[in-house]
Amino acid sequence: MIDPVVLKGFRDSLPSEEIPKKNIERRLEKVFETFGFVPIDTPVLEYESVLLGKGGGETDKQIFHFEDNGGRKVAMRFDLTVPFARFLALHQSELPIPFKRYHIAKAWRGENPQKGRYREFIQCDFDIVGVDSAEADFEILSLMYSSFRTLGISGITFHVASRSLFNDFLDTIGLYEKSIEVLRAVDKLRKIGRDEVRNMLLEITADEEKSDKIISYITSGENKGFLETLDALTALIGKETESSERMRKIHSYLRETGIDSYFVYDPSITRGLDYYTGIVYETFLNDFEKIGSVCSGGRYNNLASLYTKEVLPGVGASIGLDRLLAALTELKSPLVKESRSANVLILYRSEEKELAVKTAFSLREKGLSTDMYLLPEKKIKAQYDYAAKLAIPYALSFRDGKYAVKNLLSRESVEVESIDGVIEICR
Amino acid sequence: MIDPVVLKGFRDSLPSEEIPKKNIERRLEKVFETFGFVPIDTPVLEYESVLLGKGGGETDKQIFHFEDNGGRKVAMRFDLTVPFARFLALHQSELPIPFKRYHIAKAWRGENPQKGRYREFIQCDFDIVGVDSAEADFEILSLMYSSFRTLGISGITFHVASRSLFNDFLDTIGLYEKSIEVLRAVDKLRKIGRDEVRNMLLEITADEEKSDKIISYITSGENKGFLETLDALTALIGKETESSERMRKIHSYLRETGIDSYFVYDPSITRGLDYYTGIVYETFLNDFEKIGSVCSGGRYNNLASLYTKEVLPGVGASIGLDRLLAALTELKSPLVKESRSANVLILYRSEEKELAVKTAFSLREKGLSTDMYLLPEKKIKAQYDYAAKLAIPYALSFRDGKYAVKNLLSRESVEVESIDGVIEICR
Repeated sequence: MIDPVVLKGFRDSLPSEEIPKKNIERRLEKVFETFGFVPIDTPVLEYESVLLGKGGGETDKQIFHFEDNGGRKVAMRFDLTVPFARFLALHQSELPIPFKRYHIAKAWRGENPQKGRYREFIQCDFDIVGVDSAEADFEILSLMYSSFRTLGISGITFHVASRSLFNDFLDTIGLYEKSIEVLRAVDKLRKIGRDEVRNMLLEITADEEKSDKIISYITSGENKGFLETLDALTALIGKETESSERMRKIHSYLRETGIDSYFVYDPSITRGLDYYTGIVYETFLNDFEKIGSVCSGGRYNNLASLYTKEVLPGVGASIGLDRLLAALTELKSPLVKESRSANVLILYRSEEKELAVKTAFSLREKGLSTDMYLLPEKKIKAQYDYAAKLAIPYALSFRDGKYAVKNLLSRESVEVESIDGVIEICR
Repeated sequence: MIDPVVLKGFRDSLPSEEIPKKNIERRLEKVFETFGFVPIDTPVLEYESVLLGKGGGETDKQIFHFEDNGGRKVAMRFDLTVPFARFLALHQSELPIPFKRYHIAKAWRGENPQKGRYREFIQCDFDIVGVDSAEADFEILSLMYSSFRTLGISGITFHVASRSLFNDFLDTIGLYEKSIEVLRAVDKLRKIGRDEVRNMLLEITADEEKSDKIISYITSGENKGFLETLDALTALIGKETESSERMRKIHSYLRETGIDSYFVYDPSITRGLDYYTGIVYETFLNDFEKIGSVCSGGRYNNLASLYTKEVLPGVGASIGLDRLLAALTELKSPLVKESRSANVLILYRSEEKELAVKTAFSLREKGLSTDMYLLPEKKIKAQYDYAAKLAIPYALSFRDGKYAVKNLLSRESVEVESIDGVIEICR
């Protein structure tokens, strides 16, 4: 006998989890399609050299990689961004430009599993490639807003900032060269707090005044409106720049479409990843902020540079579906309770098999989700337990040539004469 | 620069392929749900010992397996059946019984890629576990029928047979002991023809008369109706058996629901796999039979026996989505042409950005799939090329405070005053 276990950091998804997950995915796909985004897919396995590109480092140890039977060094994708960059380079001539794609799929990392982190996880990415403009940036923000709205989540705050505006500021105080180190320190603000970040900055800059200025910059969004923050930042820089004007333009779109109240300018948002070059954002659930950002991303202006000389600017975001699901469960969202298998369960006696089979067929032909309890010899309790486990709201049985339809919650029963009568009740 | 290639036997899926694929998956999911089937998921990676169970053999060389960073021997799933058996053993106490599940997901095999065969492929499995009855068998057949109907495929023939009835026959002629070898030979009939199979049988049985009897059994469905064939088989066996009666019962359900014309009794269908114990079936497209079976399966009465002492009888089927997609493409099915990204494309001039952003927002809020062409500075030809690539049927532009909506096929244009007017045309 083999022990039927799964690997550490991996999970089965039972119907009670898989039904809401599929429901969420479908709603998101519907929104993406309403915005004119199209789906793509890429292989789970790729050449290790293609996925690791820049080579080595931390990622290397965290990815699942091996030599296949043909001696090729291969790896399982660890995100959807790198395969997308490779995809763009390979297919650019076939794709419409701007290219708006979404991709909902699994990725794998060998990191040590923590609460809410798994070695197998689902990413949901959406990007616009081939254009660098405020309208494209806004398309993504607007799509983020609509995505959460379609999931019934209104208690949401999008924290946006501009990586390039921050670089303008660093330029002003003569620290542009140390941009990447500074950004990495600043990115930790939420985790380690202001004092620790200041210490890190002191080490990087060896300058108290400059470190304080940076702290002042990244905290200047506190208790301020979007434009007020932007004004404070341009005051620190000493002038308007292309980046500040881009952010003003984006804000005007947010205001004109009436969704500006969901967005705050948070200059501490920098995103750790090097490839961001413009707007960046993270998304927090108001009632469950501590779970972290559930949707993050930004603008990058040269995503596929590893694979092609073509410069492909882009902007996009990524929803961590597992984290979002965990949050929705914690928040008792109605979305994660939707795990009903069918609208009606046909309960029949052994001598009613033909009738049950024909009735199920007719109801399904008319589109009613119908189950039949296939063990008619079982006790009635087993039958009701089955309905309860699958959250089936109605039971149908046969009585003197009529259909008896029972509401399994209220325990009330009605008799109807036709299939259409059954459908009317159970739909 | 890194060459942006994919591995041999793997493929990217471009929107023109991914849109129809998703469309097919959604339609199938809808049918499964109409039948009260629920989705599950399992990890892509499992312990090698769990997946290989019976150990070694042909599968071993064909699967992607490796040692992970923690020194565990792991493998990528090569089908959805073995993980399902493991899943059942692990979760049986939590699951409703009978358990009706579907699972649409990728699997991987390292076999040499041929036409229509890939190392990464999508399986679509549906099974009923926990019951051994004609009604359960019929549920699967009925679901197979509905699945293809919902895809608009009516030129379809389901070839069914009974593995256990064939064993009854082998018992009659004293060959029950050689059942597995005989079944494997018979399974090749479609591929290598009657004479070659007879030669194989001669080698197995060393008996001309018995070999001829087997040939006579497996070809007795030719040009006969379902019941006529069944009569011929029971005549060869010399009596009705439990298995022949099960098949008669199933046929009565097919007839009562009016779908019997899609089913033939084909005694040459045996399915190579050892675990089948009752009804077995394969599915052929009438207009493209040579692509092979697009949906196969059968009854197995002890699927999870490697992992649990609990006996779990089941019946199920598996659709090979890649093969089905290839067939639908070959048959020019309307399903594979549906690769429209949006209903309307907003074309705007640089000075109309605000108007374009607001209009897109309003149309999307009302559910109309809307794209905006984000490079307004491009020539009109580029804009129309973009619409054509994404099969967008309408273009919207702004004219004197009104919306001009152009049908991109007929090139006819109308002016409307309101957003609702736009929606009415483009929906």
